[in-house]
Amino acid sequence: MDALLPLLERAQQATLSVRTLSDHRQQSLLRSLAARLVRSAPAILAANQLDLERMADTDPKKDRLLLNDARIQSLADSLLDIAALPNPVGAVILQRTLDNGLTVEKISVPLGVVGVIYESRPNVTVDVAALCLRSGNVCVLRGGSDAIHTNTCLVGLIQEELTAHQVDTAAVQLLPVERSLVEEMLKAVRFIDIIIPRGSQQLIEYVRQHSSVPVIETGAGVCHTYVEQTARLENAARIVTNAKVSRPSVCNALDTILVDKAIAQELLQLLSASLVAYNVEIFADVAAYEILTAAAYPYLQQATLADFGREYLDYKCSVKVVADAEEALEHIRRYSSRHSEAIITENVVLGERFLQEVDAAAVYVNASTRFTDGGVFGLGAEIGISTQKLHARGPFALEKLVTEKWIVRGNGQIR
Amino acid sequence: MDALLPLLERAQQATLSVRTLSDHRQQSLLRSLAARLVRSAPAILAANQLDLERMADTDPKKDRLLLNDARIQSLADSLLDIAALPNPVGAVILQRTLDNGLTVEKISVPLGVVGVIYESRPNVTVDVAALCLRSGNVCVLRGGSDAIHTNTCLVGLIQEELTAHQVDTAAVQLLPVERSLVEEMLKAVRFIDIIIPRGSQQLIEYVRQHSSVPVIETGAGVCHTYVEQTARLENAARIVTNAKVSRPSVCNALDTILVDKAIAQELLQLLSASLVAYNVEIFADVAAYEILTAAAYPYLQQATLADFGREYLDYKCSVKVVADAEEALEHIRRYSSRHSEAIITENVVLGERFLQEVDAAAVYVNASTRFTDGGVFGLGAEIGISTQKLHARGPFALEKLVTEKWIVRGNGQIR
Repeated sequence: MDALLPLLERAQQATLSVRTLSDHRQQSLLRSLAARLVRSAPAILAANQLDLERMADTDPKKDRLLLNDARIQSLADSLLDIAALPNPVGAVILQRTLDNGLTVEKISVPLGVVGVIYESRPNVTVDVAALCLRSGNVCVLRGGSDAIHTNTCLVGLIQEELTAHQVDTAAVQLLPVERSLVEEMLKAVRFIDIIIPRGSQQLIEYVRQHSSVPVIETGAGVCHTYVEQTARLENAARIVTNAKVSRPSVCNALDTILVDKAIAQELLQLLSASLVAYNVEIFADVAAYEILTAAAYPYLQQATLADFGREYLDYKCSVKVVADAEEALEHIRRYSSRHSEAIITENVVLGERFLQEVDAAAVYVNASTRFTDGGVFGLGAEIGISTQKLHARGPFALEKLVTEKWIVRGNGQIR
Repeated sequence: MDALLPLLERAQQATLSVRTLSDHRQQSLLRSLAARLVRSAPAILAANQLDLERMADTDPKKDRLLLNDARIQSLADSLLDIAALPNPVGAVILQRTLDNGLTVEKISVPLGVVGVIYESRPNVTVDVAALCLRSGNVCVLRGGSDAIHTNTCLVGLIQEELTAHQVDTAAVQLLPVERSLVEEMLKAVRFIDIIIPRGSQQLIEYVRQHSSVPVIETGAGVCHTYVEQTARLENAARIVTNAKVSRPSVCNALDTILVDKAIAQELLQLLSASLVAYNVEIFADVAAYEILTAAAYPYLQQATLADFGREYLDYKCSVKVVADAEEALEHIRRYSSRHSEAIITENVVLGERFLQEVDAAAVYVNASTRFTDGGVFGLGAEIGISTQKLHARGPFALEKLVTEKWIVRGNGQIR
């Protein structure tokens, strides 16, 4: 804790300064920060250029790292959106007067210090800082080394704005990128109240295994779409294709198609025609492989066991033919990462059963799993999509950055 | 996972059976179980006797382990109370229709499989099983080896009742007591959704450090009461004495008295008169030691640093004289376990400041910290008192044994 401790002590000390900032001043701070970012675009782009130069052109992370004028404007817009969201602190969840005259209230209060460990996306830096300030929290940010110049510049601008509003600059701190500091963060029980990892499955798994601080996992999505035999097949093919190809690199994209045997031939022929246009590589089980071979699908592999329960994040998916809904539900139970799962069916009873039985953060009837998103669901800026069950599940945002506190007022009561 | 895995697979399979049990049948099951426990008192007491015989008479756990007719009746009463609590599942937290016609709902659903690791109290077995059934959850119970005969008997009776109601008996399982199974539980990420440790601080610390499954800590209470200089001193002495002596073995009992210098002499003389009757051993800082020596307090020690931030769970406490509220707040910030903290003051502004600034699950003005309790706060049967900030904080009960699920119904929407 040698390197981290002084920084975390400063973060703790800043909690009071942030917690007592009025709603009005929070909003004013975020709006001024939006203007400051736009005004400082040349400095941000110059810092971003230093990071971009160190990254190979072929690196898929390069696009995530890249800032330009439009993206800076979008960061500023996001700040204005967050300023306009209702303040989640101070809600009275429960209020009662006991027989002995004690008044007991449960209210929502800031979490305290939020730790976020993430990779190369500089928008996370600005979004997390803004969401934490809006909810009265301090944040300690551990971004990736790839984005160090960009993040340093952005946090510098945020701290200038904090100073201009007489808020302790330790309210938003960028931590050094040494790997050992991540381990220290995960053990800092008295100093960090919650840790949110955002990034690769390896990062999230590492945090889950090593953290003594409570974690909200924002996890991998191994998403299934089950096409049941009563489905309208053109509808099903359109939904499945959208779920796979509209943005394959995100967690709510389709990974596995399950299809009833009775309609497999017809559905896979339709899909073969639509997926081929996107060069989607299909890992097919024996039955699907036969059908797709007969349909002369060009990007076809025989599925191995490892191709199920796999998050592809690419123009790839697996296909399995199932005997019936029981087999589909059993497959999902076994392989789902409990993120987003869908059924395509005209059987209303079966659809409702699927919604009830499938244990996932978001469950769908007759729609694309791609809708699992805090913005789409109307939450405002999203922090992540939780695949655990404690505190937050599915897309979560500002309203989950609080905890509860019991406040008891008496005039001498004893028990 | 060799020993545990088959049991956890059975637990997973039981989730559906429990989740789909109607409200009415849940209540019927719990009420029949209450009658069964009372009817089976001779068998329960015989099993309990086997456990009691193995425990030394001087062991302070013996009273916790002991059952008698009155305590069995109290277990049965608790079942009737839990049956009467409102069902926490199925609440519609949010509901909206998107512009594209998708309907999105967020509803409360059972957690799934709840793991509880506890020590020698057999009432935990019955309470946890009942609370889990009432919220549609399966539970896997890992009780202490001290109570193995009692717990085996109680879980046997619960399983008979499950069978009588056509519910899978794996809905409530008592796990073997081998130590290695605890480690396996803590790594069983896909099989156990949440783990609640109840017991000693060492147990809780062990679980926190080793669990990959999300944990709700029910933790130690290092509780301070700060007597501020405007306090009515007789009132203060009465509250402090109650907070220390009314039940020293529980987590909401007082551990440290902080007192303003201006009133230290007078307050400590009053306390000296009331605490001496309970043989309370006082670990005093230099200033308090002088005053209490002059008052001829018989059970006095000079405090070492380790006497602050210590949970006594006994007729013992530490005392520190502070210069002012700033020093008191700073001491609490440093040594509190964030459970329950109190100020005794007639200064309303300072009282409100204390309520806002002190970061603890329950904060008090002018009352004993002993009130921090789910029953007292009106929650019904308590699962524990959470000292963490995620999901549950302070006393928590049935309504926290649920998570959320997003349900999306469409008719072909794509993104």
